[in-house]
Amino acid sequence: MDFHDRPTFPRGFRCASRNCGLKPAAKDLTLFVSDVDAVAAAVFTRNQFPGAPITLGRETIRGRRLRAIVANSRYSNVATGPAGLVHAKRMAAAAAAEVGTSPDRVLVSSTGVIGVPLPIELVERGVRGMAAELQGDPLVGAEGIMTTDTHPKALSVSVGDATITWVAKGSGMIEPNMATMLVYIFTDAAIDADSLDAMLRRAVDVSFNMLSVDSDTSTSDTCAILANALAAPVDAAAFEAALTAGCIRMTETLARDGEGAKHLIRVTVRQAASLADARRVAKSVVNSPLVKTMVFGADPNVGRLLMAVGKTFDAVIPADRTDAWINGHGVVRGGQRLEFDDATVRQALRTEVVDLEISLGAGDATATAYGCDLTQGYIDENAAYYSS
Amino acid sequence: MDFHDRPTFPRGFRCASRNCGLKPAAKDLTLFVSDVDAVAAAVFTRNQFPGAPITLGRETIRGRRLRAIVANSRYSNVATGPAGLVHAKRMAAAAAAEVGTSPDRVLVSSTGVIGVPLPIELVERGVRGMAAELQGDPLVGAEGIMTTDTHPKALSVSVGDATITWVAKGSGMIEPNMATMLVYIFTDAAIDADSLDAMLRRAVDVSFNMLSVDSDTSTSDTCAILANALAAPVDAAAFEAALTAGCIRMTETLARDGEGAKHLIRVTVRQAASLADARRVAKSVVNSPLVKTMVFGADPNVGRLLMAVGKTFDAVIPADRTDAWINGHGVVRGGQRLEFDDATVRQALRTEVVDLEISLGAGDATATAYGCDLTQGYIDENAAYYSS
Repeated sequence: MDFHDRPTFPRGFRCASRNCGLKPAAKDLTLFVSDVDAVAAAVFTRNQFPGAPITLGRETIRGRRLRAIVANSRYSNVATGPAGLVHAKRMAAAAAAEVGTSPDRVLVSSTGVIGVPLPIELVERGVRGMAAELQGDPLVGAEGIMTTDTHPKALSVSVGDATITWVAKGSGMIEPNMATMLVYIFTDAAIDADSLDAMLRRAVDVSFNMLSVDSDTSTSDTCAILANALAAPVDAAAFEAALTAGCIRMTETLARDGEGAKHLIRVTVRQAASLADARRVAKSVVNSPLVKTMVFGADPNVGRLLMAVGKTFDAVIPADRTDAWINGHGVVRGGQRLEFDDATVRQALRTEVVDLEISLGAGDATATAYGCDLTQGYIDENAAYYSS
Repeated sequence: MDFHDRPTFPRGFRCASRNCGLKPAAKDLTLFVSDVDAVAAAVFTRNQFPGAPITLGRETIRGRRLRAIVANSRYSNVATGPAGLVHAKRMAAAAAAEVGTSPDRVLVSSTGVIGVPLPIELVERGVRGMAAELQGDPLVGAEGIMTTDTHPKALSVSVGDATITWVAKGSGMIEPNMATMLVYIFTDAAIDADSLDAMLRRAVDVSFNMLSVDSDTSTSDTCAILANALAAPVDAAAFEAALTAGCIRMTETLARDGEGAKHLIRVTVRQAASLADARRVAKSVVNSPLVKTMVFGADPNVGRLLMAVGKTFDAVIPADRTDAWINGHGVVRGGQRLEFDDATVRQALRTEVVDLEISLGAGDATATAYGCDLTQGYIDENAAYYSS
């Protein structure tokens, strides 16, 4: 998949971002707008304490049409009671008035501290005039939704006459289930609502739902796609392939920018008895603190790999048929540690991308999970993160 | 429960420990002996890559009688193939010869690096003469099985005429499932094999099986109990109460000595719809990296608590009835963050033991999980741990 060197928007999409006073100086408010109504689909966190914007978003997305997305950082509007929902609705109304649409065509997201009331007046005041600032660089939109991200994240790719663009944020509290952090996908392809929804779910399933920075699932995860049909018709299969590839690429980008991360870890499990087994084992390995610190320490500690595979108690794991590789170097054959050149594998572990492959010898299902190493940076960041 | 100020053995139990050359200088071999055959029960790791001593131990414990336990540190004898099982059997035979019993009355444990052959000759040579060194301080036995533990761990308590003594090790790769690290329990009470087995399983279920240092499950976890019947009869209920209390106390000791840990974290979930729910939610909170770093940072980040409760997707969690407390201070009522004095709760989080209590308002089941905070020390230790 040829991603653009510099991300651009599809036809008819623009964005703006501002500081509205939630953060001291950095941007904290973003508006994405489509010139015309777009067909839309979205998936949200499965966390049982969803934020008010999630509750509202589930209702909004039932209409399957969006004109705009408004998102703020610094406050997540989670665990804020009935007032939280009122605030989320006021945020939708403010953006709708600015854009010239109705509130039910505006998706609202908030990310940041949990349990603190959203200063809604600042947001309402901040959104005024943003329509005049709309421009074509997706990275400008990404800037307004950053929390502990080290850089704004956007990506785009062409499919026939159409373009698909991803804008995302996320670096901690990330093991999405159903969706991930904030990921917005824009396209000018013409896709009907049912197909868009189905394609999004399939793509998320093999990408963001296989990502884990720290095994913690946020209360605000959202992944939405808007298709405004301004491009010439594109091949559905090509579109879905591009959508999936871009979701995986953005998943890797998010993993790479995991809090404190130095390495992207990809765990591929092959020859599993079922897809569920493959996913479970891959997640177990990518989430293991001992595997994560092993990658950080560039130490080929094969025992930790086997431990992390073996602790998925309910998966079919014929121990004497399990093989494993670290960046292509065989380290386990038939459940036993292979003799290998320690220095070579140690060196291989120093590359930024670390591929851990496990073959279970139990069937023919395959899955890949995405994560990052665990470093002092994660501890520093999260022991100091200010909660109020 | 009145634990002894200084741990002692029950009648008829003694131990010795030595350096046999597996480690450069520190003790690496321990022998526990009962003067007479003891009724025995044990539980082992559920990890699907169990060490050779686990495979052998499962066979040995079927006889329900033990005279001795021999355990080494530095090498775990895991992922070592058929030779590993041969080595474990030779280790049992060597200890049996030294003690004057048969190999099927000797439980073998190994802990340390995975995937490296056990230097069995060093162990066989090392065990010779240990019978002459047997003595009455359980801490001497604990010394020989330490890996990254910062101190040897033993505990004892009286029940009527009988004594129960725990000797344990463990500080990383700890989320036991079925058992934990190495925990040996000795008693001179007279208990039949079936009762002993049932009592052990019940006690382990509410103690070691609710412990998590890092969510990783070792391939070598073992918890065994030996009852040699040298004491006068004791009340079974009193015995089980003492057994359970000691297992919980030892669980707390192990959590406190988790790799890099500064705090013991106890998570109690009340008013859950089922015991399974209570256990699952408690484990979710105690395992959350963001909760763990929150405790390390002494920051009352209530959102992380709710997030960790809410990410147990399958538990019954009426979000608007959930309350939470940090060391007795109410921080959540009805799913919303309470107004509380930040400085007071911050100060409360600085105590060594941090109690997080959650009431789900869904039923009447209760469970407690045990863990520790996540600090730079864990990263330092595990990024540097030498694998070969």
